[in-house]
Amino acid sequence: MAGAELVELAKRRGFFFGANGAYGGTAGFYTFGPQGAALKRNLEDAWRDRFTLREGNREIEAPTVMPEAVFEASGHLEGFDDMLVECGECGESHRADHLVEDATGIEDAEALPGEEVEELIRDHDVACPSCGSPLAGRDVEDFNLMFATDIGPGDGQPGYLRPETAQGIFVEFPRLKEYARGSLPFGITQIGPAYRNEISPRGGLLRLREFTQAELEQFIDPEADEPPLDRVEDVEVRLYPATAQDEEDGEYLDTTVGEAVAEGIIGSPWVGYYLGVAQEWYERVGVDTDRFRFRQHLAGERAHYAADCWDAESEVDGDWIEIAGFAYRGDYDLSKHDAYGDDSFTVFKRYDEPKTVERATVDPDMSVLGPEFGGDAAAVAEALETLAGRDPDAFEGETVTVEVGEGDERETHEVDADVASFSIETVTESGEHITPHVVEPSFGVGRTVQTLLAHAYETDEVDGEERTYLSLAPEIAPRDAAVFPLVTNDEPLTDLADRVASDLRAAGLAVAYDDSGSIGRRYRRQDEVGTPFCVTVDRDGVEGDGPETVTVRERDSAAQVRVPVADLADELAALRTGGTFDDLIDRYGSVDTDVETTEN
Amino acid sequence: MAGAELVELAKRRGFFFGANGAYGGTAGFYTFGPQGAALKRNLEDAWRDRFTLREGNREIEAPTVMPEAVFEASGHLEGFDDMLVECGECGESHRADHLVEDATGIEDAEALPGEEVEELIRDHDVACPSCGSPLAGRDVEDFNLMFATDIGPGDGQPGYLRPETAQGIFVEFPRLKEYARGSLPFGITQIGPAYRNEISPRGGLLRLREFTQAELEQFIDPEADEPPLDRVEDVEVRLYPATAQDEEDGEYLDTTVGEAVAEGIIGSPWVGYYLGVAQEWYERVGVDTDRFRFRQHLAGERAHYAADCWDAESEVDGDWIEIAGFAYRGDYDLSKHDAYGDDSFTVFKRYDEPKTVERATVDPDMSVLGPEFGGDAAAVAEALETLAGRDPDAFEGETVTVEVGEGDERETHEVDADVASFSIETVTESGEHITPHVVEPSFGVGRTVQTLLAHAYETDEVDGEERTYLSLAPEIAPRDAAVFPLVTNDEPLTDLADRVASDLRAAGLAVAYDDSGSIGRRYRRQDEVGTPFCVTVDRDGVEGDGPETVTVRERDSAAQVRVPVADLADELAALRTGGTFDDLIDRYGSVDTDVETTEN
Repeated sequence: MAGAELVELAKRRGFFFGANGAYGGTAGFYTFGPQGAALKRNLEDAWRDRFTLREGNREIEAPTVMPEAVFEASGHLEGFDDMLVECGECGESHRADHLVEDATGIEDAEALPGEEVEELIRDHDVACPSCGSPLAGRDVEDFNLMFATDIGPGDGQPGYLRPETAQGIFVEFPRLKEYARGSLPFGITQIGPAYRNEISPRGGLLRLREFTQAELEQFIDPEADEPPLDRVEDVEVRLYPATAQDEEDGEYLDTTVGEAVAEGIIGSPWVGYYLGVAQEWYERVGVDTDRFRFRQHLAGERAHYAADCWDAESEVDGDWIEIAGFAYRGDYDLSKHDAYGDDSFTVFKRYDEPKTVERATVDPDMSVLGPEFGGDAAAVAEALETLAGRDPDAFEGETVTVEVGEGDERETHEVDADVASFSIETVTESGEHITPHVVEPSFGVGRTVQTLLAHAYETDEVDGEERTYLSLAPEIAPRDAAVFPLVTNDEPLTDLADRVASDLRAAGLAVAYDDSGSIGRRYRRQDEVGTPFCVTVDRDGVEGDGPETVTVRERDSAAQVRVPVADLADELAALRTGGTFDDLIDRYGSVDTDVETTEN
Repeated sequence: MAGAELVELAKRRGFFFGANGAYGGTAGFYTFGPQGAALKRNLEDAWRDRFTLREGNREIEAPTVMPEAVFEASGHLEGFDDMLVECGECGESHRADHLVEDATGIEDAEALPGEEVEELIRDHDVACPSCGSPLAGRDVEDFNLMFATDIGPGDGQPGYLRPETAQGIFVEFPRLKEYARGSLPFGITQIGPAYRNEISPRGGLLRLREFTQAELEQFIDPEADEPPLDRVEDVEVRLYPATAQDEEDGEYLDTTVGEAVAEGIIGSPWVGYYLGVAQEWYERVGVDTDRFRFRQHLAGERAHYAADCWDAESEVDGDWIEIAGFAYRGDYDLSKHDAYGDDSFTVFKRYDEPKTVERATVDPDMSVLGPEFGGDAAAVAEALETLAGRDPDAFEGETVTVEVGEGDERETHEVDADVASFSIETVTESGEHITPHVVEPSFGVGRTVQTLLAHAYETDEVDGEERTYLSLAPEIAPRDAAVFPLVTNDEPLTDLADRVASDLRAAGLAVAYDDSGSIGRRYRRQDEVGTPFCVTVDRDGVEGDGPETVTVRERDSAAQVRVPVADLADELAALRTGGTFDDLIDRYGSVDTDVETTEN
């Protein structure tokens, strides 16, 4: 199925569609319709179950609007830019790097300096995609992708819509570590909207201006904490390492998490652990593993602080799209906030046993330094202290040499060693302050939704008619079941159908009720949105002395069983959490019915 | 417990706290910590279960950033203002109406014109609360509460953070009605962030700049659709009608939903229905019904289009706070978007039987009108057509009089009746286009969280020691259970505790694991965050030939039972969905244990 078709299907069937259509639409903003919102929520719940609850991590919910100071620290204010070129003729803005990539075949033009991109535009006669005018000679500018706003009235403070959920976690680390009672490792997750004011939003959910992220920040002591790798070491993964991407005919590496970590192909055991967890999770929610891989970032692609970085990629409409990233970020994030913020972003790491250490100290005699160095005296004292820590041997002679001041003002002073009063003290330390490292699995929720739709799309033939259906996992499908009265003019039957729908809803299931059109048509409608089970109430189910029964039809096989109404909610709940329809057939027997083609 | 205490408790225990503390904080923005985010999510899930799934409604998820055109239509651009007065001395901004209310005792100063508020400030010598300077003579200005931003680069379009989730539903009505196959009634819900750039945010979650709403827009045919009132007619509610509020010693009315609707105290049966549903839901999630009421809006308080409006109010720290609103909004919202937008916001209502109606038409002879009226000819023809629909009798004479043009240009023309070619046609109509009415239950999620904490806060004495605990409903509590190994130096015991925690997590439960400090201390920690059940693994549970067992302790009663490990997940799941601990005691017998005070 082509990408445009998928987007059209998503719109027609209520999964997602461009927002504000009645007002001409707003590029880069999509609304999830009834089916899509339910699917997305089920996917988020499945993520929460696996990456938060099951791991013993904790979730927080931070505001989407954050003050400027946060993004000064994180670097987004300075560096979260895309290259923009505006057409002098029609005024449309475009991603300059993308135009250059299309015109030259260069990959990753984003990494080039602006002037070089301007040259390439000139040399290759790149024209405006909107009006065809030449773009040669136009400036290529950095455009910051954060949405800006003002917080508060009057001289309000500048604020931004967060470009990633992660900052809401990092910035609250001083408090979060208290909740973890100061002990590493601990993981904090967040699921919520993030915003990027894209220059050129792309179709569907692939490059939006508002999108949903599910992120986990795993805080670890890099010297001490190991992941529980044994839990996922046998998980099979398809890797696309950087080396293979660099080669002409580089191939995928089908291996296990355990081997890839042991052989150093995956650099960090923590990253390896979460690749394993993610592989299992993607299978659970219905990603087609034949159209899925983990691709390692190339050296030039990685952020400078990221030691190892892998993307989860899925194949949609012939393209590989990034649906998650797994990065070892070191102490980059917490160090930055520690430097910029007013609070401590370190944790106190207690030694197993207190350590006795020798520490060089000075106790300069200020009554001597003062008269001798005047305004520089304090700086000299500080320089002595620094020197003592760095190079105790410098104090072995009769005089000590220190430098004070910056740049042109820099001066060298000689200080009498006696005046410095150098000594070695023996102190007992119970621990030290360390900056935790961060391992970050970061998932794009919308892109995963789009992947699931593409991978679940199926066509086959039922009763001689072609049908299309979505083979979504029961845990993820928008609805758990649909309930149909076979006919609408038979009161005992419609009463039972009402009661069945109402009871299933009371049991917490998402249930559609449909009494319009032929039963075959109603099955098709549910097939098209991926409803895994359809419950039909017919005459046989209400007649006779036995318990009331209904038929339950499975979406993919179109097989049916007859189930007592009293057991229905439990059976459907079991099917949602991993039970199989074959079990049901074993227990209740398959129904051979022509109900699919019976007209109402 | 005082309000400030509640906010302090919420911070200390990880429920919620002012955001960006390391950067001096950002007024009006709160972060939900691990406990609060879980509590909030459980509350949202309970709302979704009741107002979406159980009702057969559907949920959508629309973007939080919306274009200006939407708010031109909705009226927010023009009228979503608060009265601002800025201090000339210190530059601080304040809500002018609030200052006047405090100084004069006037209620609802918001409804006064700006000039009158300026006068009151002058007459009552109102001073700046920040610096004490007089505010007399300062302008009172309208300040629009929407956060503004720019969508896209260059000449981007103005956008706003939505001030309510509802607009994301209304604006997509043309598509949503298609998903509902054009038939009323249907209900659409949305849970998500909304934004108001408050002039003076208040403490805690009461008046935030970013907050969460859960809204239901119930679209109905006002002539045909009735709510299923019988489902809630016996629900007991405490009403505070407008008449009682107007009286000196007006009293609450304790009645049932059915009676209040029958007696016309609640004007709309749809509003009555949702008050009943809400009453039951609030009880379910743990609102103290003795500190809860439905207050009717006074006539002056209601939006002009709202026929009937009630707020759900809870008592927190001696104040009544609005936690939900229930409004009959008529066709206001859809009519506005129908007038401003490019799409149809009506539904086609098919008659039971096609109707034969007589319709007056004209077919003016333009070859006569043209020469006679020149540039006015088309306007004359149009005026004839309008007149035919409005007053067919006007065509009975020899000439017909019409007026065309606007204002000073308005002219009267006489047209020969023959030229107008008037006739009565008989046509068959299968239905008509109607604008649905909207009933809107709108819930504040954060305010409900704050209410639940305030109402769940309890103190008592256990084993001679005072304790505080949160008696949160198991469905809502941040965690389902905590697991403790009684001691940490006994491997079979700690192994079992690990396995129990891991199995419960695999069953989808939110589980804390704590092996630090005395068991009594660990119970207290969980009591303080409202964990309903603590599971302790002790020697008795792993010894002997029988099945492994653990003790389960209930939070409020501190009663304990011993449960086989194999049954634990099912038993805890049942307790979460409405089972009682007394059942467990009946089946397993109460354990008389001094484990609470046993030191580790």
